Amino acid sequence: MDPDQLSKHFVEHYYTTFDTNRLALINLYQEGSMLTFEGEKIQGAQSISNKLNSLPFQQCKHNISTVDCQPSGLSGGWVVFVSGNLQLPGEEHLLKFSQVKPH
Amino acid sequence: MDPDQLSKHFVEHYYTTFDTNRLALINLYQEGSMLTFEGEKIQGAQSISNKLNSLPFQQCKHNISTVDCQPSGLSGGWVVFVSGNLQLPGEEHLLKFSQVKPH
Repeated sequence: MDPDQLSKHFVEHYYTTFDTNRLALINLYQEGSMLTFEGEKIQGAQSISNKLNSLPFQQCKHNISTVDCQPSGLSGGWVVFVSGNLQLPGEEHLLKFSQVKPH
Repeated sequence: MDPDQLSKHFVEHYYTTFDTNRLALINLYQEGSMLTFEGEKIQGAQSISNKLNSLPFQQCKHNISTVDCQPSGLSGGWVVFVSGNLQLPGEEHLLKFSQVKPH
């Protein structure tokens, strides 16, 4: 599977998990993972899961607009860039979001 | 200098160059660099410079909203995520932009 397709599958899996079974997001992070969320740096799978599960909304729906991936240079790794919008119950407007997944 | 400060200085330098001396952007890329621009992958300093200098506007002003950096994992590298808006002459609305700089 080429990197573009793999990235799209991963992104779909990540946001479906986020929107339907947020506690299971912990399985998509490792001890060395870092999440930067609105400027706050959060390290490790358990801490990241705690943060994402403490967000002040229970239901949400991520709509993906773009998924771009490219080699990240030195290590043979890849970086995936996602943009889209987030629907929250009772909110009239969509929230725009974007996220980067270094690998 | 810590990585957050270094990232902010680099981002300021990058967009000041973009807005005031776009031909000099070539100096901020290497042969192995890749730009993904609206889904199109462009490789190498000369090709990236050609792309950025062929955009259909002469004057622009990037206003930076956020700069986040974090380790990219395997290689000791970093990834920098930037969001902001772009002012173009004669355009009433600001264009939102975001960019990732893997290192």
